Amino acid sequence: MSNSEGMGQTVTEKILEEHLVEGTLETGEEIGIEIDQVLTQDTTGTMVWLQFEAMGLDEVQTEVAAQYCDHQTYQFDFKNTDDHRFLRSAAGTFGAHFSRPGNGICHNVHRENFAAPGKTLLGSDSHTPTPGGLGQLAIGAGGIDVTVAMGGAPYYIQMPEIVAVRLEGELPAWATAKDVILELLGRLSVKGGVGKILEYTGPGVETLTAPERMTITNMGTELGATSSIFPTDEETRDYLERVGREDAYVDLQPDDDATYDDEIVVDLSDLEPLIATPSMPDNVVPVREVAGESVDQVIVGSCTNGAYEDILPAAKMLEGREIAKTTEMIVAPGSKQASELLAREGWVAEMMAAGVNFSEATCGACIGIGHVPASDSVSLRTFNRNFEGRSGIEDDNVYLCSPEVAAAAALAGEIVDPRDLAEELGDLEDPGVELPAVYDASKADLITPEEAVDDDLVKGPNIGDVPLKEPLESDLSGPVLLKMGDNITTDHIIPATQDILMYRSNVPKLSEFTLSRVDDTFAERALESDGGFLLAGENYGQGSSREHAALCPMYLGVEGVLAQSFARIHRANLFNFGLLPLEIDAETYEAIEQGDDLEIVDDVAEAVSSGAEEFTVRVGDEEFSATLRASQRERDILAAGGKLSWTRAQAEGSGAAAADD
Amino acid sequence: MSNSEGMGQTVTEKILEEHLVEGTLETGEEIGIEIDQVLTQDTTGTMVWLQFEAMGLDEVQTEVAAQYCDHQTYQFDFKNTDDHRFLRSAAGTFGAHFSRPGNGICHNVHRENFAAPGKTLLGSDSHTPTPGGLGQLAIGAGGIDVTVAMGGAPYYIQMPEIVAVRLEGELPAWATAKDVILELLGRLSVKGGVGKILEYTGPGVETLTAPERMTITNMGTELGATSSIFPTDEETRDYLERVGREDAYVDLQPDDDATYDDEIVVDLSDLEPLIATPSMPDNVVPVREVAGESVDQVIVGSCTNGAYEDILPAAKMLEGREIAKTTEMIVAPGSKQASELLAREGWVAEMMAAGVNFSEATCGACIGIGHVPASDSVSLRTFNRNFEGRSGIEDDNVYLCSPEVAAAAALAGEIVDPRDLAEELGDLEDPGVELPAVYDASKADLITPEEAVDDDLVKGPNIGDVPLKEPLESDLSGPVLLKMGDNITTDHIIPATQDILMYRSNVPKLSEFTLSRVDDTFAERALESDGGFLLAGENYGQGSSREHAALCPMYLGVEGVLAQSFARIHRANLFNFGLLPLEIDAETYEAIEQGDDLEIVDDVAEAVSSGAEEFTVRVGDEEFSATLRASQRERDILAAGGKLSWTRAQAEGSGAAAADD
Repeated sequence: MSNSEGMGQTVTEKILEEHLVEGTLETGEEIGIEIDQVLTQDTTGTMVWLQFEAMGLDEVQTEVAAQYCDHQTYQFDFKNTDDHRFLRSAAGTFGAHFSRPGNGICHNVHRENFAAPGKTLLGSDSHTPTPGGLGQLAIGAGGIDVTVAMGGAPYYIQMPEIVAVRLEGELPAWATAKDVILELLGRLSVKGGVGKILEYTGPGVETLTAPERMTITNMGTELGATSSIFPTDEETRDYLERVGREDAYVDLQPDDDATYDDEIVVDLSDLEPLIATPSMPDNVVPVREVAGESVDQVIVGSCTNGAYEDILPAAKMLEGREIAKTTEMIVAPGSKQASELLAREGWVAEMMAAGVNFSEATCGACIGIGHVPASDSVSLRTFNRNFEGRSGIEDDNVYLCSPEVAAAAALAGEIVDPRDLAEELGDLEDPGVELPAVYDASKADLITPEEAVDDDLVKGPNIGDVPLKEPLESDLSGPVLLKMGDNITTDHIIPATQDILMYRSNVPKLSEFTLSRVDDTFAERALESDGGFLLAGENYGQGSSREHAALCPMYLGVEGVLAQSFARIHRANLFNFGLLPLEIDAETYEAIEQGDDLEIVDDVAEAVSSGAEEFTVRVGDEEFSATLRASQRERDILAAGGKLSWTRAQAEGSGAAAADD
Repeated sequence: MSNSEGMGQTVTEKILEEHLVEGTLETGEEIGIEIDQVLTQDTTGTMVWLQFEAMGLDEVQTEVAAQYCDHQTYQFDFKNTDDHRFLRSAAGTFGAHFSRPGNGICHNVHRENFAAPGKTLLGSDSHTPTPGGLGQLAIGAGGIDVTVAMGGAPYYIQMPEIVAVRLEGELPAWATAKDVILELLGRLSVKGGVGKILEYTGPGVETLTAPERMTITNMGTELGATSSIFPTDEETRDYLERVGREDAYVDLQPDDDATYDDEIVVDLSDLEPLIATPSMPDNVVPVREVAGESVDQVIVGSCTNGAYEDILPAAKMLEGREIAKTTEMIVAPGSKQASELLAREGWVAEMMAAGVNFSEATCGACIGIGHVPASDSVSLRTFNRNFEGRSGIEDDNVYLCSPEVAAAAALAGEIVDPRDLAEELGDLEDPGVELPAVYDASKADLITPEEAVDDDLVKGPNIGDVPLKEPLESDLSGPVLLKMGDNITTDHIIPATQDILMYRSNVPKLSEFTLSRVDDTFAERALESDGGFLLAGENYGQGSSREHAALCPMYLGVEGVLAQSFARIHRANLFNFGLLPLEIDAETYEAIEQGDDLEIVDDVAEAVSSGAEEFTVRVGDEEFSATLRASQRERDILAAGGKLSWTRAQAEGSGAAAADD
């Protein structure tokens, strides 16, 4: 249970209450919260902005909207560069900040420039909770959620459990913030945080700098947590001062009588250097247990451990030394701010002298783009994920660890506990955590809305428009375009292979592949038919959260899906894109055939809006019963023609400017 | 004509004479020269070392052999990383220097560490002539030529014309070495240097530092020249001192009475900032003529203009300024030495502050790997080539210019003559050319043969063996495996699409695609048949110099090719891989059919070696005449089973160690 109002509150509850526009803070209840800031990156951002364009609004409605380019910044295909060009034009046109390719990873650049205690942040990237370390309530979400938040609509979520992670003691030498989150992963597993917000408490909090806290909140995502958050204190204020944003500080502490749904205690002084072994972030063991394993590649970077403070300790360890000839070491800072500071202080030169390949600030290798390990090799990375194949090669052996453990391995050519290496080398000391006096790096790569150089969208040949659905009509009828069996996945609906997903910003083109794995004539038939239905067995739409699996059928004119049951996330996506999801029984499924003309007898628009659950479906002379399970909010969205149409209508109702179209 | 011995000599002739092992220095005559140094890079190197392994020698025979990793260092695919791993193991096993991925472009790292006046260098990269600026005679060649040179065999070449490029005067402000070579390209065209060695002379030589000379000799390749070379002088000695290799200096000047085949005069004082417009390096105009064109992307780097001395002027121009918000600027140094020096002196931080995306030291964008321009955009690059599509996108607009012109465009957001920008900004001065007192960067990434960490070859799953052919037999017979028409290209023989060329280091796999565009059953039939012949019309093997077009048929067991005529380079490749190329007339072509059993009546081994030109071919009851046109050297190579077998035999004869196999 969570606390009801009036009682002592957690930090999370305080922020939620301040932003609450719908519902009550009871665990499991749907709540709607106002979003202050949004962020998107280059792989999710194109669709976010195309959807925003489709909504027809003139300008983003949140206090801050920021578009980063970080995933595809090597730009090894013109489509990546075109995406960046489009994103710059979208940010300029609609009033968002634009971070140029090369400026760094969204989470790093956001924490440096915008993250603020007490504010809410929604981002179309799973590691959005990073600034939880500064007391911001930051949540990762799907692209359409970010789009509608930019349109001024609340973000809806089931009220999570709030779990206290009580930190005691202080980290000993060579143990780091990375080891705190690895310890939690080892204890709780990658599912341990699902449906929860982890709120850090206890006397250990003040022993951690804000950047260390952000390493922990960033990788809270690997626990499956909805978010992770720290209270604010002098360390928070100190960090904000150093980034030149002391005004953003607000005091956020849980009330003394705040109660939590659960509590986990971590004694920092018990920690030692830990490592996640292949191929799951919760396969955590002490480094000593796997010492001696040869290491072919070491990479320091990513949004988890790519900040100045993360790289500096590794640089200090490498200074005046050389990495093993058997090992390649790459350093890819999380932001150009980090790169510039490290360069200005001479650390980039020192690392290069030691044998480091110093890279652009990019997500890069963390998502399998660049520096793919050799076959049958071992790679140590300071990243947050080591899922099998994520590095770009099947059967990879990727370990996750702190920059200190990574640097030690690069020097030794094998996995080694840095304490043992320190002993061996004699003159190697724990470099500790050191923040720069001031983060006085250039902001040349961050283009503010005021500085924007574009006021029109620039779309390369691979960037299409996103269609917007009209409000639901009263009469709904059409042919059954495709009859499918049980367990149709989102991969059946839109294949995720690279040759197809490259069209993710081009709905007309991508739609040609809709359900092609079931019937490669489907897309053409659907387009020709001008409306119609899909028919499926049990568990339709299982698999990923891919929104295109609803968007593309909608583009092709599909009006609804009749299935024996729906997978949870895909069912939500059908509402989001205005497709009627009706449940039918096995007999009905058997009785209807592909090609049948199908009519929904009810006044559909009225029935959906008014809460009707039972619908009558007529096929030839026969009538069948079908069920719509939906909350009133889902019904409103469906009736409006989907979430974008609904948000647009809301914004118009609230007086927000809507462009002509 | 070139000079005969005893008369005054050019620098080129002096070096050639010192290395001559066969022939005389008469223009057009085939000469064999001893090779002192070889270099290979990662896209050509795997095949070089697989061939070296196949030759069965223990150790490279040249004074210096160096393996660089520069083309695929972003390692977008495990096959790239596996290649690098293999190359390290090959260098270690056979005694070559190994430059780790990230250490820079072969030409830059070679000039820093090994290039030496008076020495010969053969490299499997077209820009190998770079150290001609230091008085080294450096020539780009095919992989097999480098392999056999590493095996101790001479390099054979037709004696080129020697053309004097007489430099007079001195470069005015804002004109650079790049403008010297652009001027030559504008005058002579991309074919102007074919069959020639350009030897720089005249009073203007001493006004250019050694790095400036190397920009010129590097890009001499775009003239089609066999090589380009400067005499040596105090500037050469000065550079060698600064890189810590003053012992390598030798004095090399043309004799006063040296005569040249031709002379071109360039008055340096007449030059101004020039630019090559899309899409050929000889489309050269003054920058002023295209001023005002918007620029989307600027890249400084490559083997032409990626050295410390090249980047420093751009960095000085950017210091305290910001690049245009409409323009992305990437700096990719040619070597980590350059990166480290620039980082140590603070220039990397300054460039980052101005908005530069600072990249790894790599060939990268110059070969379309990374930073592909957006569609319908303009890219200014300090590279040496702007062939259409080379940047990674068709219909690209790539301009080639000096770093100064590139930096000016990044600041202005459009093409601008830096003299005009200097006037506009008031405080912008020509930064000039400045060398570091000492190039005191780390050599951590250069692994010497003594430091080698591998003594066995490490082959990933995509790296196969290269077969070696047995010496030619006396009796040659087999079926006609495939009858083809006229103008069969090397693309027909081995398609160059990425999905197929990815197997370039895996001959068994690649061979499966042999002639598949003509007959997709061919490879399987050839393998099963254990020998046989190809039959073709006119111009067989036209197109690229791809050695695989001979190697793969050889792997499949093909013994010879009967064609009405052969394309020149492919014919040479057939000798190199031990396949008998016989010319037939049109009637013979018509009379023989696919599937016929064919026998060469002569004692083939004896006839080839002894100089026989006419051969008798029997098919059924009929006999036809066929012609072998070949020099004695080509006959020896063919009889030995190809160039590798021949080189191996030569090395064994000369007492070089051969490994058991």
